[in-house]
Formats: sequence, structure tokens, C-alpha cells
Amino acid sequence: MAKELKDLTKRADNYSQWYNDLVIKADLAEQSAVRGCMVIKPYGYAIWEKMQQQLDRMFKETGHQNAYFPLLIPKSFLSREAEHVEGFAKECAVVTHHRLKNAPDGSGVVVDPDARLEEELIIRPTSETIIWNTYRNWINSYRDLPILVNQWANVMRWEMRTRMFLRTAEFLWQEGHTAHATREEAEEETVRMLNVYTEFAEKYMAVPVIKGVKTANERFAGALDTYTIEAMMQDGKALQSGTSHFLGQNFAKAFDVTFINKENKPEYVWASSWGVSTRLMGALIMTHSDDNGLVLPPHLAPIQVVIVPIYKNAEQLAAINDAVAPIMNKLKQLGISVKYDNAENRRPGFKFADYELKGIPVRLALGARDLENGTVELMRRDTLEKTTHSLEGIEEYVRDLLEEIQDNIYQKALRHRESMTRTVETYEEFKIEIEKGGFILAHWDGTTETEELVKAETKATIRCIPLDGDKTEGVCMVTGRPSKQRVIFARSY
Amino acid sequence: MAKELKDLTKRADNYSQWYNDLVIKADLAEQSAVRGCMVIKPYGYAIWEKMQQQLDRMFKETGHQNAYFPLLIPKSFLSREAEHVEGFAKECAVVTHHRLKNAPDGSGVVVDPDARLEEELIIRPTSETIIWNTYRNWINSYRDLPILVNQWANVMRWEMRTRMFLRTAEFLWQEGHTAHATREEAEEETVRMLNVYTEFAEKYMAVPVIKGVKTANERFAGALDTYTIEAMMQDGKALQSGTSHFLGQNFAKAFDVTFINKENKPEYVWASSWGVSTRLMGALIMTHSDDNGLVLPPHLAPIQVVIVPIYKNAEQLAAINDAVAPIMNKLKQLGISVKYDNAENRRPGFKFADYELKGIPVRLALGARDLENGTVELMRRDTLEKTTHSLEGIEEYVRDLLEEIQDNIYQKALRHRESMTRTVETYEEFKIEIEKGGFILAHWDGTTETEELVKAETKATIRCIPLDGDKTEGVCMVTGRPSKQRVIFARSY
Repeated sequence: MAKELKDLTKRADNYSQWYNDLVIKADLAEQSAVRGCMVIKPYGYAIWEKMQQQLDRMFKETGHQNAYFPLLIPKSFLSREAEHVEGFAKECAVVTHHRLKNAPDGSGVVVDPDARLEEELIIRPTSETIIWNTYRNWINSYRDLPILVNQWANVMRWEMRTRMFLRTAEFLWQEGHTAHATREEAEEETVRMLNVYTEFAEKYMAVPVIKGVKTANERFAGALDTYTIEAMMQDGKALQSGTSHFLGQNFAKAFDVTFINKENKPEYVWASSWGVSTRLMGALIMTHSDDNGLVLPPHLAPIQVVIVPIYKNAEQLAAINDAVAPIMNKLKQLGISVKYDNAENRRPGFKFADYELKGIPVRLALGARDLENGTVELMRRDTLEKTTHSLEGIEEYVRDLLEEIQDNIYQKALRHRESMTRTVETYEEFKIEIEKGGFILAHWDGTTETEELVKAETKATIRCIPLDGDKTEGVCMVTGRPSKQRVIFARSY
Repeated sequence: MAKELKDLTKRADNYSQWYNDLVIKADLAEQSAVRGCMVIKPYGYAIWEKMQQQLDRMFKETGHQNAYFPLLIPKSFLSREAEHVEGFAKECAVVTHHRLKNAPDGSGVVVDPDARLEEELIIRPTSETIIWNTYRNWINSYRDLPILVNQWANVMRWEMRTRMFLRTAEFLWQEGHTAHATREEAEEETVRMLNVYTEFAEKYMAVPVIKGVKTANERFAGALDTYTIEAMMQDGKALQSGTSHFLGQNFAKAFDVTFINKENKPEYVWASSWGVSTRLMGALIMTHSDDNGLVLPPHLAPIQVVIVPIYKNAEQLAAINDAVAPIMNKLKQLGISVKYDNAENRRPGFKFADYELKGIPVRLALGARDLENGTVELMRRDTLEKTTHSLEGIEEYVRDLLEEIQDNIYQKALRHRESMTRTVETYEEFKIEIEKGGFILAHWDGTTETEELVKAETKATIRCIPLDGDKTEGVCMVTGRPSKQRVIFARSY
């Protein structure tokens, strides 16, 4: 399948089309035969696996264990937590039957009407209900707490408008569900996992994020507080990249989960839940990539270095193969993942374009002339700079360069975000600035009415009440009422 | 939650109850609120993760990549491959609606009748259909082949009688789906993966298996050949532990997947598929465990060594803590996973019983007297032997012992299988021997009629036509007609 690089839409022409093109052309994912569900292709999945591995390590380092809970949830569970059902679980896939049978006319299979379920089952949109129903049996005493469990799973929400990775009917995610003896512990856990997500986004994805609290209106249905990390895309739109919820005792009350505390009194259990999903793939793609294709952070690139031989005949190729072997070994010893592409059915120019499209951080090209000179041509994907290096010590150079690229794309994304972040005083000013995109820091009176008004008039939502930074009081840009601190408005994905 | 070891049923009293007890008491899994679906608890999931990691490594070493395909399959897809629909896809979960709404009477949520899907969707019982529908767009030329893709996923089959791990409505598995330009390549792949499963079962699970081919009657629906690995449980029943299917061009024809071959002619693509599931957990548990609980092979034990301090006061505990720290470090350096359990709320005797129940391969107990003598008490879980060792060099001793235990439980399982494997000549003899359990090697005339007769009369099925071993011809024990080689009969899970 030839990939025509020239068909990649330019960001300036149509950012949205550029994203869609890139997901397809870089072989990350494609639409499936099922509405709103995508196929994650091997290259896209390899990046997701790198994310999973790192997140999983961080979850385990903070004391969590993985487990697995059922895909299907009895319909009645969704009604148990009043706010949860109000805010959440309406658009979802409903299983009503458990058998097919041959169509009487021989045309295929039909649903067997005799196999109707007594109670319909819902494909999990999130698992708080089934997990808290399970925890009831796991928890008797404060000695059984905390429970620190994570699940890697697929979930389904019947979204009307879908975009690959950003919003799909089925998506992959992890969901942590923890149970604690005290409010303080549950709140600490909620913030701890927000910090884990922040560290992952910044150190591995090279995506700078703002940590904050959601407004009551934007909270997870059933949570007392929702914490979020918000990233800024190249087009000036915000992307919510991970959330961590302090659930109080809401689900414990809904599913009657109590424990005997140290004072020998029964008490409802305190809870947190937190999750990130394949949506992070969208954040990764949109933060760093350019008109030539993907730009991957070295810490998450499945292939960090590709080596391409440039040769005129079999003899030259054989000599280059020999020279490359020890370089490959040395790079691998340094923990670098490297691919040598000496496939003969594709020309170097095609390979170069393809690896640019796929975002491989470093490309080495080695020709007959290079062998004579003891040199190699190196291209770094982030800046597209080409330089010539001595083969001597190239492995250590590449190792250091990968770290430099990791830092460089983070700094670039951070500068972009800073250039797109402005403070406004008046609603007039706000309406002008929001059209230019970016994060707008403004005072807000804390009411849902004002938040809804701004959203209706400008399509901007409050992304979060930031945890860090300026906490100066002021007056709401819309109503003039008092404001405790500036909040962040943006249009978002 | 106190675990009462004495409540574990003895194998001799009731093997089936022993298994169910053990799954619950060792904290591996439990029933959920959804019929036939289990919750895999953290300790059970940790063992499954070890299996996944090793299998995933082996798949990647043999050139495979992971990808992800949709959970839901359009109903019409299941009718496309005639044998597939006949033999397979009837008992499955059917999604008919995509929305809930508030019940008019305020009693909770009901299915919204206006949100009926145009075409029902099936929760995948296996993914051949949706994957081959996708491959149609991936394959144009022989240059696009082979495709060597694996998926880790949940699948669902609406089984009537379920048992944890062995047969559940929802289960976790991997399914490999490969596409090839030639029949030979697809057949080679089918056998290659059978060998990967064999190596995994024997070297990691310490479960000896017999490789063979299924009879036509027992083949995967849509396959030309199904290869299997069959293990022998302690109760004399066989457990099918992994299958690898040569699918010929059946799915390519059903989904119109052709490629232009080297002679520039269009041709249907050749296929294999292969899978193992959480059923392997059942095989692992039933092969090695005893009346004291789980026995885990060191290569898959999440915790390989546990260290328990024996102390009378805080001073003694502090001294033991100090002595244990360097042992822990050294063991970790040797790549051994070790836990130090100095929790003060459980007595050593309770800990000993609990770690026996959980199958930790090696337990070290260290008391004040040991510290004086420079010794440690060691118990190996497979034989329950206790010995005293010098602390000097204990880490290397433990490392070597773990390998010895791994080999010992494999050899024990192999001796058991051999003692349970007999050759019979007559059907009379067969009927007597099959009552005693085990693998019965007998001649069979190759017909489905005879196979069905034996099954109806004895509940024994042909587990496989073994690939290795004696290939002497003979006459069918039932009909006296010619037989090419002995096949393996057994009762099975």
C-alpha cells in the first residue's frame, strides 16, 4: 500500500482534516464496519502499549494491583447512584438477548425471541457500579482497607459524533477504583493519581498539562470533586487528558459498602476513581506532529532509531550490512529500540518519507561514501535537521540526542501553550480573545448560571480551576460578583 | 477476611469442590452479579499477567504485532462463513439498543424503544469475521503479506454451565489472526504457534501437553484443520489448553480478500488463527495444586519467595528487619520476586498457612535463634519439605531451588500423565479403562459415526490424533475397520 505523503492535508489549511489524514496515513487506526468503533492498527497499538507499560509501572510503584471485572452491568445497577444515572449512563449499548438462530428462510441468522434476558445488561460505560457492588463483599473491617485496584479494559459510550482516538464509541482505558477508611486518605489518593498522570503526560508524552479541579457542572456524575489535567493542542483547543475523582461515600452508600472502623463502629467506605484512555493517543498526535507527519517523543516511540542503507549494488549493501550490525548491537545495549530497514523493494527516498510520516525520532542513513569516510548522515525528526557525524561514538551521541529531542518537543509544546495563554479582565475582551483559541484566564463568580451563559455565547467551557499559579481574588468578568481566583476557559475537544 | 484453611475440601473427597474452594480461598476469582461472568481478583490477575507477558514476548519473537479490533460484530457478518455460523455463533450476547431513559414512573432506567439499532450487534465470541472484513482493505498484493497480528481481548460466549476460569461467559484471551500468500506458509504458521503454546505450557506452566490434530467433528467451525495441546488433570480428565487453526481460504472467500500474486494473478488469501485464554489458569491450578492449596510454578509465580520474621518483641523484629534487608536486595538483583511480610497483625502460623494456600514456591522463616546461628528455615511449597540453611549464600541456593521446583513439578505432572495413559485393543477393555480416567490410546476407523457412538456410550471424546509417538496401523476397536494410528480418547473439561 503506497502512502502518498503529498496527500497529507496541511495544518494551516484544515487542522481537523490534517489530524484525520495523519491517523490513517501513519497507520495508527481506521474506521471499522461498526459505527463509531475504530480498528487500532499495529503501529498505533504499539504506541498505546508503550503508554500502558509506563502507566502500569507507575500504578504499581504507587501500590496498585490490577484486576478484572465483568464487561456487562445489570441495568438496575445504573439506577443505584442517583447522580450517576442522571449525568452519565444513558447513551450505552444494551444487551437484550443471548442467542441467535437460523433464519427460517435460510437467509442467515436472526435473534432468537425466546432468548430474551430477564434483566437487560449494559456494556460498561465505566465500572464504578459493578466494582462497588463487588467491594461490598471484600470489605468488612478497616484492616481490609485500602483497596488499591486498577483495571485495563474496553468501555463503550454511544457517542453521536466520533473522531478516532478522541471520541469513539468503544475505547480502551484504565480505570482505578480505590476504597479507603477515611476521607483524607481518599482525597490524598485522588491527588496522588492526578500527579501520576501529570508526570506521565509531561515526562513521557512530552505534553505539558495544567492541573486543576472541574466546576460542579463539569464533574463526573457521582463525584464530589473531579480533578483534571488539561492540555493545549496546536489549534488552540483544550484537550482533557485524564481525570481523577474523589467520590466521597456516594458509591459506598448506593451499594451499601460499610466497614467496622478502629472505634468498632460501622462507617461507609470512602472512594476515588481515575482514568486515562486511548484519547491520550489523540493528545500525543495533535501536540507534536507537523505537516510531514507524526512526531513521537522518544520515550514512547516503538522504534526510536531507524537505519537506512544507501547503495548501488549488492556488494555495497553487503558492506553496509556489516558496518551496521555492531551499531545495532551497541544501540540495543544502550536500551534503544532500533530498526534496520534494508528491504530491497522500497527506495531510500520512499523510506525516508515513510519514517518521517511515522515520527521515528532519529534516522541514520549510511552509504558507500560514508563507509569510506567513517561517517553517517543523521536526521532528527523534531527539527528535520540533517547533520553528518563520525561513526565513532555515534551510539552515545544518539542516546543523548534522544533525550534532547524529548526535552525539545516538550519545551516547544510548553512555549506554544504559554503563547496561547492570556489573562482577560472583561467579558468583551474575553469574547475577542476566545476566537483566537488558547487558554483564557478570567475571573468567574462560581455559579453554574454564569458558566452556562459563557458556554452558550462563546462555546467556551471552564476547563478547570487551576491548582497552581496565581490565586489573587477579583471580580467575575460577566457579573462583577466576587471571584476567589482566575479559572481557565477554552474551547475544547 | 480470615481464610480458614481447614475449609478447603480434599481432592479425594470431591475434586470439583476442591477446585471451586481453591479458586475462592486463594483469592484468584469469584462469581460476579452477572450470570456466568467472574471477577478476576488481584492475585489471580497477577498470575494471568505473568502468563500474558511471557506469551506476548514469544509472539513478538516470532514476528507478531498486536492490534485491536472492535468488540461488536454486525450480526450479518456471522452468516458469511457457512460452517462458522453453523458450528459456532449461536449462544452469544446480542446488542439491540443504544440508549436508556428514565422510567416514566421514576423507578430507575428503562431501555429507550426509540433507540433500536438497525442491525443487531454481537459481542465477539471470536473475531475471525470482523478481522477478515478489515484485512480486505489491508491486502492488495503479495507484498502486503504475511500479516501476523495478535489481539489481547475479552470475548463472550453464552455458556449454559459455567465454572470459574474453565468455562465462563466472558473470558480473556489472545487471538492471533494471520494472512499468507501460500497454503504452505499458513500451515507452517499454524504449527509454529502450536509449538509456541507447547513451549509455554511445558517451560512456564510446567504442564506437559500432547500435541495433536482434532478430528473433523471437533474442529473449529470454519477451519480445515485444528491443532490442539491437551493436558491431563489430576482427576484423570483432559483439558484442551490451546488451539491453532489452519483456516485455508474459507474466511478470505467469505469476506472477499484476494491478493495479486507474484504471477500477477488474483488469488484468495490463506489464513491461520490461534488462541489461549484464562482457561489456562484452570489448567495451572488443577495440574499442580494439592490439599494445602495452590502450587505455582516459579516461572509464573507473582511472588517467588516470601520471608516471614519470627519474633517475640520489637527489638527482635528490628534485628530481623536489618538482617533481611540485604537478603531482599540480593534476591532482587538475581531477578527473583520476593516479599517480606513483617505485618504485625497476623501471626506467623497464619502467614505460613496463607502463603501455602497461595502457592508461593519458597518460604523463608527467620527467628532470633536463627540470627544467632546464622541460619534460616526454608520450606519449598512443592514437597512441603522444611530444611535449615546457612544464611551465607542463601540467595544463590534459592535461585537454584526455584529452577529445581519448576522442573520437579513438571516431572511430577509428567509421571502422573504417563501413569494415566494406557493403550487398549478392544472396546470392552476401553469401557473399563475409561472409567478410571486418563488418556486411552486406541485405534479408530476415522469416521464421525464411530466417534459419536463412543461419546454417547462412554462420554469420552477423541482429544486428538497425536503428532508424535507411535504411528503403527491397526484396526478400529469398535468396528474392526482399518486405522492409520492410535488416537487419544478421554473424558474432558
